[in-house]
Amino acid sequence: MDVGFVGLGSMGHHMVANLLKAGHTVRVWNRSRGPVDAAVALGARRVERVAEAFAGDAVLSMLADDAAVRAVIVDQQGLARAPRGLVHVNLATISVQLAQELVALHREHGIASVAAPVFGRPDVARAAKLNIVAAGEATAIDRVQPLLDAIGQKTWRFGDEAPRANAVKLAGNFMIAAAIESMAEAAAMVGGYGVSASALLELMTGTLFNAPVYNTYAALIASDRYEPPGFKLHLGLKDIRLAFAAGEGVTTPMPIAGVVRDALLEAMAHGDSELDWAALAKVAQRRAGRAS
Amino acid sequence: MDVGFVGLGSMGHHMVANLLKAGHTVRVWNRSRGPVDAAVALGARRVERVAEAFAGDAVLSMLADDAAVRAVIVDQQGLARAPRGLVHVNLATISVQLAQELVALHREHGIASVAAPVFGRPDVARAAKLNIVAAGEATAIDRVQPLLDAIGQKTWRFGDEAPRANAVKLAGNFMIAAAIESMAEAAAMVGGYGVSASALLELMTGTLFNAPVYNTYAALIASDRYEPPGFKLHLGLKDIRLAFAAGEGVTTPMPIAGVVRDALLEAMAHGDSELDWAALAKVAQRRAGRAS
Amino acid sequence: MDVGFVGLGSMGHHMVANLLKAGHTVRVWNRSRGPVDAAVALGARRVERVAEAFAGDAVLSMLADDAAVRAVIVDQQGLARAPRGLVHVNLATISVQLAQELVALHREHGIASVAAPVFGRPDVARAAKLNIVAAGEATAIDRVQPLLDAIGQKTWRFGDEAPRANAVKLAGNFMIAAAIESMAEAAAMVGGYGVSASALLELMTGTLFNAPVYNTYAALIASDRYEPPGFKLHLGLKDIRLAFAAGEGVTTPMPIAGVVRDALLEAMAHGDSELDWAALAKVAQRRAGRAS
Amino acid sequence: MDVGFVGLGSMGHHMVANLLKAGHTVRVWNRSRGPVDAAVALGARRVERVAEAFAGDAVLSMLADDAAVRAVIVDQQGLARAPRGLVHVNLATISVQLAQELVALHREHGIASVAAPVFGRPDVARAAKLNIVAAGEATAIDRVQPLLDAIGQKTWRFGDEAPRANAVKLAGNFMIAAAIESMAEAAAMVGGYGVSASALLELMTGTLFNAPVYNTYAALIASDRYEPPGFKLHLGLKDIRLAFAAGEGVTTPMPIAGVVRDALLEAMAHGDSELDWAALAKVAQRRAGRAS
Repeated sequence: MDVGFVGLGSMGHHMVANLLKAGHTVRVWNRSRGPVDAAVALGARRVERVAEAFAGDAVLSMLADDAAVRAVIVDQQGLARAPRGLVHVNLATISVQLAQELVALHREHGIASVAAPVFGRPDVARAAKLNIVAAGEATAIDRVQPLLDAIGQKTWRFGDEAPRANAVKLAGNFMIAAAIESMAEAAAMVGGYGVSASALLELMTGTLFNAPVYNTYAALIASDRYEPPGFKLHLGLKDIRLAFAAGEGVTTPMPIAGVVRDALLEAMAHGDSELDWAALAKVAQRRAGRAS
Repeated sequence: MDVGFVGLGSMGHHMVANLLKAGHTVRVWNRSRGPVDAAVALGARRVERVAEAFAGDAVLSMLADDAAVRAVIVDQQGLARAPRGLVHVNLATISVQLAQELVALHREHGIASVAAPVFGRPDVARAAKLNIVAAGEATAIDRVQPLLDAIGQKTWRFGDEAPRANAVKLAGNFMIAAAIESMAEAAAMVGGYGVSASALLELMTGTLFNAPVYNTYAALIASDRYEPPGFKLHLGLKDIRLAFAAGEGVTTPMPIAGVVRDALLEAMAHGDSELDWAALAKVAQRRAGRAS
Repeated sequence: MDVGFVGLGSMGHHMVANLLKAGHTVRVWNRSRGPVDAAVALGARRVERVAEAFAGDAVLSMLADDAAVRAVIVDQQGLARAPRGLVHVNLATISVQLAQELVALHREHGIASVAAPVFGRPDVARAAKLNIVAAGEATAIDRVQPLLDAIGQKTWRFGDEAPRANAVKLAGNFMIAAAIESMAEAAAMVGGYGVSASALLELMTGTLFNAPVYNTYAALIASDRYEPPGFKLHLGLKDIRLAFAAGEGVTTPMPIAGVVRDALLEAMAHGDSELDWAALAKVAQRRAGRAS
Repeated sequence: MDVGFVGLGSMGHHMVANLLKAGHTVRVWNRSRGPVDAAVALGARRVERVAEAFAGDAVLSMLADDAAVRAVIVDQQGLARAPRGLVHVNLATISVQLAQELVALHREHGIASVAAPVFGRPDVARAAKLNIVAAGEATAIDRVQPLLDAIGQKTWRFGDEAPRANAVKLAGNFMIAAAIESMAEAAAMVGGYGVSASALLELMTGTLFNAPVYNTYAALIASDRYEPPGFKLHLGLKDIRLAFAAGEGVTTPMPIAGVVRDALLEAMAHGDSELDWAALAKVAQRRAGRAS
């Protein structure tokens, strides 16, 4: 297929590589030049303006956040000259509110829109093992399924209203944060009795909590090492804020999200914004008077 | 070995059966008579007074809570005539505070004490697949290890201070409650956007959260069925209260425990005490105005 | 003085009346026509465009929220043709973030800006008894002090950075919400023991809590009547959201704000958006299984 | 009247002085001797055993907490030989649960019991200006009313079930804690924008929050001085724990109590147990990275 790709961050780069590997033609656009050069080196074609990426069979975008999506897609009028029938796959983790606006905007321009945020970090993206949460018109998803298959291990479909995929993605990130915070509090408590985080979490992940999320973050907490970050704490706060807002949008209180938010803010207040968000464990220790 | 066993509830019954199966001699005591008859039918020997169970090589007790342990072990002076050197294995989930008292009490009577609370429900106990969290003097644990091997799949040792095992057990139950509550809130939020709990949790347990705890409780929440209870909600509140108190004992705030506690109380206020504690999901729905 | 006034809601109307009473000349602008007619009837002069209000010695604006301020002041370019040296007094309760943007915007246009949000409901505004929280350049505040004196009983100055006044106003509204929520929880608890909210609150407001805020809201809670609303619950949620954001802006967790936010959302989920925000008391009752 | 008085702490001492001043005969008992000597110097009569205080027309007790009440009244069998018809006035702040037990215990012994916890610190007790929260049989309260009048400025009656007075007292202390915590959070937030706690609280207590509780604690927070303590932080935690338990007793969630509890624990973890509980303000500052 002939596809455009917008947003060549650490995730987008690997996605483009996998699309090329699968035999697709990829036109790439990125705000800064370096990542474009890197993609071109892999066989992608450079385009100078966003609008040129919105052409061909489909365009995928993997932008950082709401602001980037607004700047690139909405303000630069990426959609303005897009051919009717083009499918736009938005891979970014954005707010449900923006997702709802995008639905209306795409409809205006006669473009099919698919929300397809992903679970997985850059190494998972490189291995084409992402889990993709997709929503949008079934026919549109069907058309881009070969593209999704090229970058992920499985596509989980959530019906034809695109914002649902964004809500699900935010719910998932919230669950991850809750898992980290609960490990942090549990470790702080047993620590008061002389049990190491490592001993507690080896038990828990060896039994009831033997799942990827727990294994990943338990290892960080057990070793008390939060650099290099797999997912930066201040980005975690951004996602919790979006989950909160998603809850507000449907008048749903999420008290654990409030707890996590306060802890993330406290971590930032102590200079840990750039650490992995497993550094929530430091907050729990500090509150208990056992500051690391 | 020649062992006493005190407390023949749904867990204790299976433990006795497995001890007998492994070839041990078991003297049993229980407050009510029915469970004793059942154990005797399997080959156990009945004793009339608690003190008679505290004899032989070791005694195991599996009592319901702090009050039962106080009533049976402390007030009925189970330890009073126990032979020096006897090992008492306390399998119950009790408060760290009571565990600390028991250490002193056992020391006074020259009895070795091992705290060995377990993870696993009755069906796991029947299959002798419990995970046992043990702490106490290493030599004492070594001596009862054959007994622990007869009832569990693995013994996780946490050093020679018995109360540590209780702290770890409470931390584990807290983590389970936090997992349930986070699923409940996530499901309530996506529900507002038309995504079913079932669809969300199938994704999460199929990927990042593929762990026994999540699989078990996601199934209950997805089907919105909380009867028959695997673990009753009001017992969950009791354990969260103990985790709270364990945190207080070492001045460790546990804000998620507070959130869970409030939600459990709210469930009880609405008549759901006897449901499985996965009924926290109903609380999240009710708060969002989507009462089941 | 010769002043413009923008925003003739229930607060603005009384402010204009008091400015006129004090002998000032007032040019008025409002999005809808009715309120303008009413002000003209009192002696004000109608202007057709916002920009015409931004003239003379000073302009005061009393708009509903961030969106209204953006729409009227920023987007309609109220400031574009304003004479250098004009003082703009922003009386609205807005976010600290927008207040910071406005500082930059005013500086660009060479206009002095004073933030002067007020405490007091419409009846207080009518009586010219508002408490005014002012910040901005001292010379600018000095110049408009006669205007502030005409509408309020006292001006509390918070230095020369305008956004400080907005932070203080939001902190105050947060404190009010916390007071309501604490009364709600206390009343729910004693209610379980058969003590009426009325009896509890008569004691508390008759002794330690004999303050306007407690007296006002205790009366509503004691009578369980939340209509007509003095301050609508959904506007309360908006202000708590702004307080939250103000906290985030300086990495300051505000856990009570989180509790209040969840309770307000829950009230809205049960259809109480348009009630007075003292209806938080209904949420506390409902959670305790004693739904009104 | 001929009365006994048990418990001569800093509150009890002043109460006895005021009872003597009003012309009553007072037999005093205290665990330690010093306070008894001091009371005797004022005209009281010493008794050697608690039971001797439980004689005459009435006995008042002002003990520190549940443990002291259990030790002195329950375990030492203060009630055992008390004359039928004696009225026992329990002035202490105790748990609702213990209050309920005491009702049954008094009934067994044919003694009338009145719960009468008080609001006011030692200086208020000295001035005989306490606010007394009384519950119990009306005839019993009527009989001791002259005694209550001698020590307090007003008796607020809450019906004939004694534990109600204890629930109300705990609700009041909870409201005080909530007021402190909300000032702490508000001050931390505006502090981030350069506004001093002092400036914020001068405004708030000068307007909407002009009440004794706010004035008292705002002064401590504004000056950032928490010694000498008016009410020690760890005693505050004890009372919040009792309020929590009172809520649990009637399945009433109290989320703000959870927030306050966590903050008090955190203060204790940082060595502030003996400070005034207004030191909650230090916790809010520390969380925001502005540790004092």
